[in-house]
Amino acid sequence: MIKAKPFNYPYDGKLNPATTALIIIDMQNDFLLQDGYFAKRGYDPTALRSILPALSLLISACRSAGIRIVHTRQGYRADQADMTEYEQWRRARSGLDGTSVLLRGSPGFEIVPEIDVRSEDIIVDKTCNNAFTYTDLEHILRAQGITHLMFTGCTTDVCVHSTLREACDRNFQCLTIADACASGDQYAHEAALHMITVEDGVFGAVSDTSEVMKALLQISV
Amino acid sequence: MIKAKPFNYPYDGKLNPATTALIIIDMQNDFLLQDGYFAKRGYDPTALRSILPALSLLISACRSAGIRIVHTRQGYRADQADMTEYEQWRRARSGLDGTSVLLRGSPGFEIVPEIDVRSEDIIVDKTCNNAFTYTDLEHILRAQGITHLMFTGCTTDVCVHSTLREACDRNFQCLTIADACASGDQYAHEAALHMITVEDGVFGAVSDTSEVMKALLQISV
Amino acid sequence: MIKAKPFNYPYDGKLNPATTALIIIDMQNDFLLQDGYFAKRGYDPTALRSILPALSLLISACRSAGIRIVHTRQGYRADQADMTEYEQWRRARSGLDGTSVLLRGSPGFEIVPEIDVRSEDIIVDKTCNNAFTYTDLEHILRAQGITHLMFTGCTTDVCVHSTLREACDRNFQCLTIADACASGDQYAHEAALHMITVEDGVFGAVSDTSEVMKALLQISV
Amino acid sequence: MIKAKPFNYPYDGKLNPATTALIIIDMQNDFLLQDGYFAKRGYDPTALRSILPALSLLISACRSAGIRIVHTRQGYRADQADMTEYEQWRRARSGLDGTSVLLRGSPGFEIVPEIDVRSEDIIVDKTCNNAFTYTDLEHILRAQGITHLMFTGCTTDVCVHSTLREACDRNFQCLTIADACASGDQYAHEAALHMITVEDGVFGAVSDTSEVMKALLQISV
Repeated sequence: MIKAKPFNYPYDGKLNPATTALIIIDMQNDFLLQDGYFAKRGYDPTALRSILPALSLLISACRSAGIRIVHTRQGYRADQADMTEYEQWRRARSGLDGTSVLLRGSPGFEIVPEIDVRSEDIIVDKTCNNAFTYTDLEHILRAQGITHLMFTGCTTDVCVHSTLREACDRNFQCLTIADACASGDQYAHEAALHMITVEDGVFGAVSDTSEVMKALLQISV
Repeated sequence: MIKAKPFNYPYDGKLNPATTALIIIDMQNDFLLQDGYFAKRGYDPTALRSILPALSLLISACRSAGIRIVHTRQGYRADQADMTEYEQWRRARSGLDGTSVLLRGSPGFEIVPEIDVRSEDIIVDKTCNNAFTYTDLEHILRAQGITHLMFTGCTTDVCVHSTLREACDRNFQCLTIADACASGDQYAHEAALHMITVEDGVFGAVSDTSEVMKALLQISV
Repeated sequence: MIKAKPFNYPYDGKLNPATTALIIIDMQNDFLLQDGYFAKRGYDPTALRSILPALSLLISACRSAGIRIVHTRQGYRADQADMTEYEQWRRARSGLDGTSVLLRGSPGFEIVPEIDVRSEDIIVDKTCNNAFTYTDLEHILRAQGITHLMFTGCTTDVCVHSTLREACDRNFQCLTIADACASGDQYAHEAALHMITVEDGVFGAVSDTSEVMKALLQISV
Repeated sequence: MIKAKPFNYPYDGKLNPATTALIIIDMQNDFLLQDGYFAKRGYDPTALRSILPALSLLISACRSAGIRIVHTRQGYRADQADMTEYEQWRRARSGLDGTSVLLRGSPGFEIVPEIDVRSEDIIVDKTCNNAFTYTDLEHILRAQGITHLMFTGCTTDVCVHSTLREACDRNFQCLTIADACASGDQYAHEAALHMITVEDGVFGAVSDTSEVMKALLQISV
């Protein structure tokens, strides 16, 4: 059991590696590089890069414990068939039209090399902020018998939160690992973590890397 | 066109009543009454009640302009078939077990009398925070040819935000009317409004009642 | 284990009442009465009525065994917000415009009195033929821990088949009880049952009431 | 307008290339080759191959008319994360375990060379029979403003029918082109076409290649 707020995780005291996944949201070049989508939008990717050591610890400990790793990647289809006129307008407005940011198949779409992606990991590509919408994420989780999700990645207030909210609505048991999530907007990051705890945990529980590591090391022993 | 941030709404300059809906999230007794679910959770419903005048203005102006009104209501099914063990545990933990809060068919589930609900309005009942999940909301909006949504109601950080996020992911054009939304947690309310505007409007645009009224009155003339 | 084709059900030999539901599709007045929607469409409801005794046996045996009963009901919302122009045109073309057939709240929408509906049963109302589309059916089944579905009701080729197909796609374990399903079109009924078995059971297994009863009676003992 | 049964298509008389797509279901090596999945299941792919000339005509005419082409491909993810124990059991039972049939990235998964796939076409990969389930098909169609679908491909009774049924439920206007669909099971093929027309077109309209070609040629002129 992982010490968390407003209640420990999982709530009923059984952390089962076979039914748990570590969800790593959108740790892609487009968000973390100095010349990626995010930097072009005017955000400093430093905060996003700062969670890489925590993520590496978690990934390694989850592998040892037998917990599946799920990476998501944000980006339009290479054929751009899923890009609306509105999104084209938004890209043009930000000077991103004609660029390859947030496009599948482009270098920016790849997960940063600091993240240890292995062939046994699951990768889910998505256009939406919510990784369940128009993807096979739920299909995979159900097929694997996974019912418990631990959330990490970026950005806390956008894609992590949209996916976390939906996971709760679909009755997955959710934990957010606060210091393994990041945003380019520190106020939004902190508020997003706070929002999880309103109404006594409306979006599940919040913990940090050290508490999760303690619990994972006990499983691996 | 409605003056809004970070861009005016709709972005392409055509506010069409036939394709627009006013979404009013969860203005129910359970959230607004002094002895409802929300008050029992320890929140002061005063902030939620304070948006009632703005909502009444908007409802009236939308009706005159020919814009459909969609009300959502949050609550478990009367048979509780959609209530998990986890939710039962959460209710018990909050001293809500055995009560009828957030249950369809109970008085707390009804929309407060200050909101003018008419037979031509659309009511969508939901268990999830996201009003699109496991409901016919998208079915109805598509059947009615509605592509533009203006968000109001409570709470800003939970059900309004979850539904707004999903609406954006499903490519509806979204406006949030800031002073017609409320939360029992003022910090979360303000942060939720701020989050809409990150990445130059990742969840659409934000405006206020007076700007929306100006635009609606022009339509009705 | 229930004797079935092309393989026995469940495939792995464990029939667990706690994780199984009996799905009864659309046994409503509109389909079974001589002046209902179906009869007005020119179909003879006799075939639909003929499965009532088998359904009563199955319902009673499932209750004794502790298997949940799920009834679906087909019909547009009372406010008709989910009815498209196309559906209005189809109704007018069939002389059904202005009638209350397939409308929630109308007498034709109710389940026929021969079916024993109890308060502990689950009722799911739907506009679509596929009972999973725009409803909370999956939400309920997951919340209840139900993974195995036994299909009955009408019509075999339309709503039973659309729901069965989707249940298979969403990885529920499915059995169709052939003589507890019916259609106004006998050729379509028989072909629909045949289709389940192509590709060695692409839509699960098919059995009949007597085989299911044998298995259920063993559980109840 | 295309001559069709039980009513012409589209029902309201406007065939608009910009809002119409030609859907080509699963014309893959695994289904059409003599050593593919389908042949290993014991089906003769001759019927599936026989629709290739009709499909080529339709593809060419749709391109000329400005109608988008959507190809679907059936197969498990390369990492098999979406394959349940039940599907593994089914594959083993058919002697398909250890083979690469119906796996993304394998040669059998590719569309047969007789089909002219171009870079401007849209390709949707799927695990389910219903191409809407756990995919971005609806997302793409809505983003492109496509509301009308013409169905072709294989097999008529399984993947074509599951996708067609869902498309109708989601209020797309659907036409099935009978002689551009095929199945390894002729009885199931014919019955599937018949089922579309019950209840006066419950799954839309049915036409054939020559009637569609007539209408397309008029558009292109």
